[in-house]
Order: sequence, then C-alpha cells, then structure tokens
Amino acid sequence: MTNERDILITEVALRDGSHAINHQFTVDQVLNITKALNDANVPYIEVSHGDGLAGSSLQYGLSRTNELELIEAAVSVADKSKIAVLLLPGIGTLHELKEAAKLGAKMARIATHVTEADVAPQHIAYAKELGMETVGFLMMNHMAPVNKLVEQAKLMESYGADTVYVVDSAGYLLPDQVRERIRALKQSIGVNVGFHGHNNLSLAMANTLAAIEEGATRIDGSARCLGAGAGNTQTEVLIAVCERMGIKTGVDLYKMMDLAEDIVAPILQVPQEITRDSLTLGYAGVYSSFALHAKRAAAKFGVDSRDILIELGKRKVVGGQEDMIVDVAAEIAKEKNKVVLG
Amino acid sequence: MTNERDILITEVALRDGSHAINHQFTVDQVLNITKALNDANVPYIEVSHGDGLAGSSLQYGLSRTNELELIEAAVSVADKSKIAVLLLPGIGTLHELKEAAKLGAKMARIATHVTEADVAPQHIAYAKELGMETVGFLMMNHMAPVNKLVEQAKLMESYGADTVYVVDSAGYLLPDQVRERIRALKQSIGVNVGFHGHNNLSLAMANTLAAIEEGATRIDGSARCLGAGAGNTQTEVLIAVCERMGIKTGVDLYKMMDLAEDIVAPILQVPQEITRDSLTLGYAGVYSSFALHAKRAAAKFGVDSRDILIELGKRKVVGGQEDMIVDVAAEIAKEKNKVVLG
Repeated sequence: MTNERDILITEVALRDGSHAINHQFTVDQVLNITKALNDANVPYIEVSHGDGLAGSSLQYGLSRTNELELIEAAVSVADKSKIAVLLLPGIGTLHELKEAAKLGAKMARIATHVTEADVAPQHIAYAKELGMETVGFLMMNHMAPVNKLVEQAKLMESYGADTVYVVDSAGYLLPDQVRERIRALKQSIGVNVGFHGHNNLSLAMANTLAAIEEGATRIDGSARCLGAGAGNTQTEVLIAVCERMGIKTGVDLYKMMDLAEDIVAPILQVPQEITRDSLTLGYAGVYSSFALHAKRAAAKFGVDSRDILIELGKRKVVGGQEDMIVDVAAEIAKEKNKVVLG
Repeated sequence: MTNERDILITEVALRDGSHAINHQFTVDQVLNITKALNDANVPYIEVSHGDGLAGSSLQYGLSRTNELELIEAAVSVADKSKIAVLLLPGIGTLHELKEAAKLGAKMARIATHVTEADVAPQHIAYAKELGMETVGFLMMNHMAPVNKLVEQAKLMESYGADTVYVVDSAGYLLPDQVRERIRALKQSIGVNVGFHGHNNLSLAMANTLAAIEEGATRIDGSARCLGAGAGNTQTEVLIAVCERMGIKTGVDLYKMMDLAEDIVAPILQVPQEITRDSLTLGYAGVYSSFALHAKRAAAKFGVDSRDILIELGKRKVVGGQEDMIVDVAAEIAKEKNKVVLG
C-alpha cells in the first residue's frame, strides 16, 4: 500500500489528543479507536501521554491508564497500522523506549525544543538499535530562525533520524512561514520531512497543504481535531481535501469520517473550538502552560493576560523560564500606570 | 477610519449565524452583540434571517423574532458600524428592502445563485434608490466555471452593484480555486470584490487569505464561526491573522475576541465543529438542505447518503431539483445490487 501513498499520515488523537481530555484515555477507548484507524488504513498511530512517554506526573497531568497498557492495547488490534510513541528526552528515558518497543511500537518520535536537538542523539540511536523507525520532532518551531532550524535538522539527521518534523506546537506559523521552513529542510537534509500543525489561528489545514506542496511527505492529523490548544489538523477533513486535490493518502475517507464522528467525538469533554485562550496562544506563540501563570499574574498586577503572553512570545521565553511571567506582568503594569499618571 | 483599513469586514453572525441557532435570535442578543461589534469598530454588521429578508417561513425556518425588530435594535446601538441586510430575490421583496432601509439599514446584499444574477437588477436598482450601498452576492460560486462567474459578475456590476462577492456557500472551494476566481473578477470588473467563506473543509481562513492576496477588499467573517454548515471564517481569528500579516482591518482585536467568547459563544446551542455532515456537504459541494433528503433516500434504498450527495454535487443539482435525490439514490442502489449480484 505504501507505494500508493503520496503522504504518510500519523494520527495523533491518542497522543496530542490526550491533552484535550486531560489524559483520561481508557484501554477500551484506545482499542476502539485503534481498530477503526487500522481498518481505515491509517499508516501510523501515535499512542503516548500528551507529553510523551512517562509524561504522566503531577506537573504534566496524571494519566488515567498507564500508557504502556494503552500501547499494548493499540498494538494488539493494529495488524496494518504501525504504533508510534513520542518521547521528550528529560521526561521519558531509554527505559520507557525499550518497554514500548518490547510491546510492539514500531516508531519512536524523539521530540525536542527546536533549538535543542542535541539532547536527542542517544534516544535516536537507541530507538534504531531497537529496530524502530525514528523521527526528530522539532517543537515550537517558530522560535528558531530558518537557518537555526536547518542546523538543528541536520543534527537530527546526523543522529540517524529517518524523518525530521517541523512542529508548530503553538499554532503560530503562517502558511508562507511553513512553506519557507519545509523548503529549507528539503534543500538541506536527505531524509523525510514532516509537518505537525495546530489550529489556533485556523490555519492548520492551510499550513499542512503548504507543507505538502513544498515536499513534506509525513503529515500529522488528529481525528475530530483532538489535540492541545485549538487541536491539530483534522484528519478526516485532511483526507477529504487530499482526495479533492489528487493527493493519495491511502486512507479510507468514509471510515475515517465515521470513526471521528462515532467513536472519537463522543469522548470529547469540550469541543475543539478556537477559544479566546487558544487564539491568544497562537497569536502570541507561547507554550500553553504559560496561560494559567499569565492569568494569575494579570490578576495580581491588574493587566491583561494577553499583553503578558504577547510580550513573552516576543522575548521567546521557553519552558523553565516561568519566573519571567511575573517580571513581564510587573513591567506592563508599570508602563500602564505611567500612561495613566502621565 | 475607512482609509486606515486595507479590508472592510462584514460580520455575519447575526445573519449566517442565524442558521446555527435555528433563527432564534432575541432582541437582547442582537443589541448586545451589535453594541460590542460597534465598539470593536467592525465596519458592517449583517442582520437578517439566515436566508435573508422574509426568510422566516416553514420552508426556511421560522424566526423567533421578526427580523425587522432585530434590524431596528441593531441600528439603534450602531453609531459607527453600518447595518447590512441580505435579500434573496424570490424570498424577499422590494417591500422588505424598503422597510429595512426605513429602519436605517445602509447596505443591501442581493444574493442569487451564481448563474442567476439576472434576477437581481430591480432589487439592486431599488436599493440604490433607497440610498443603500449594494452588493451582488453570488452564491454556490463553485457551481459556475470561471468564465460564467465573470459574466455574472459583470451583470451585477451593470445593475449598479458597488461590490461583487464570491460566496463559497458550500465551503467547497480550495484556495487555488478562490485565487483564480478573485483574480478573474479583479481583471474584469471595476467595482469592489468580496469573499464569503465557509469552513466545511477547514479552509475558510486559507481561502480568505487567498482572496485578500488577490485583491478582495470586502471580507465576511463570523464571530466564533457562527454560520451555516461548519460556520464561516472566524472573525476574531481573522483579525488576529491580519494583525500578524500587517493587513489593516481597523477592528480592535481584544474587543473582538472578548465579544466572541463572552457574548456569542454562550448563545451557541451546538459548537461549530466540522462534523461528518458538514464535511460531507463541503466535500460534495451541495446545498445543506439536501442533507436530510439524502439521508431519507439513503435509508429507503439502503445506500450511503454520502454517495448520493457526492453524485448530486457532480451533477450540479440546485435547489428546486430535490426530486433528483430519490432518482440518484435509486440509481446508486441499482449499481450496488449489480455489483453484488455480478
């Protein structure tokens, strides 16, 4: 079948979508969704905590079910689709990678901040040793200029990644920016290029099409848009658009539509709309984990949390620098008072 | 303010959005939403039944409140924004147009099927007589080839329309198709060109950006995506994207975000997700009113309603030809039985 596909889709509802339901997936849900995705001929299905293997924690949110059980369940019903796992070095370890491989996971996506590929070599090498297909997953991609992205992608390639992804974690990128990034990677690395979009600016589909046009062949989608922020590129819609454009995905459109409607949608606790909060994150280009901190700081200093987030985006503040949030709030309050007094 | 805007936005939540809430708008809701839109500096606000003036009927859905009351309410609180009305000749008449103008509506959007501009001249002429700005609103735009569209747009211009819109009623068009259509109009007519998108293929924003790039200056949006099918281009998201791209809308982003979240979202009875049904309509390119008929025929003949809708789209069946739906269902059933027997 692979040679009849122009692009290879990875369905991420069972990983990125985990954010949208507070990591509450059950074994039954994973069995039902994976069975249906397998039947629809989706090539890859990612199953992990939203923040990757071993993400289940007070900090990132506790999973209802041990993810290894979920991976095992998925593998048990996927006789065509391959099960993928996500791993963020620093959260997950080689140990979990090995466990996942033992259970039958066939693809390891090693995810780092776009400027920190250098934390990935061990994990990529080990995944290859375990016989897994490997992906270098460069998150918060907009935070690096294109030349820096190229440098980091080359690192990923040098570690042995079979594919390098542009991951628009914040749903911040505009179509022309995606185009530029994918084009630069196609010109500078020899392995597959992939794209993972978020819909915070209602551009997930547009960005995905731009990526495909520039030669990305690995594409992430999420049934019913289930994912962090405003969700991902909606898989069943992507399949329909690809059919209309003559791009062969190999995925059965009706089956994909049916599973999204009948199996995935009923699981959603809140619909995947573009809300004020998710729009703000996409507009500012910041981590979703900043939103709550910014609201608290905004209340304390009497400023608009959006102003804080936009400023954090401008300063390219990253995870771990949460103390900056209060500083920025204080500065904005000071500026505001100056204006009022002045 | 107008000279500081690159595009002029018409907010359609109080017209197209009426479909999404079964035409149940109250005077209070219209007052609150219009006040907030006016305060956010949105240039035009359309207020009418989803199917235009006099749309309230058993066939198109009964309005909870007489739309003239809603128009009057909107006008009473809009000291900056202009109130627009939609009129489909055959549903609304010159009489309703006069009433709306008397109440203070300043823009008349005369809507016809893309191949039937010739039903509009009287209405456009009369609207101009009433001192209203006029728009020729060419619906189900994908159903005409580009040369036919150009011919129809020229007719609209010849009747006196100040603007001609490409209206992607079914959410069927792909970005390159929008680009081609807007470009053709820019080359062949001298009046403003506008675009109205639907999100059934998750492409409303992409199509809107394509239209703007090709020179469309009149753009429709809907707060919180409120509209028929999967909804329209989401206004507050469009404002954010335009800010990012340096396209001046003159609309206050935060105020637009706030009204969408705090005033419009609570009114929604169901969220504006892309469902199996709305995706099918966008993929097939048919009237939303066909969906229920197709489901009935599908049940009767034991076929998939999607196959019926796709075939109707291919045959470019239009409103009034609903009897074709049963014929198509019967043909599909016959073919299917042949295959099974064969």
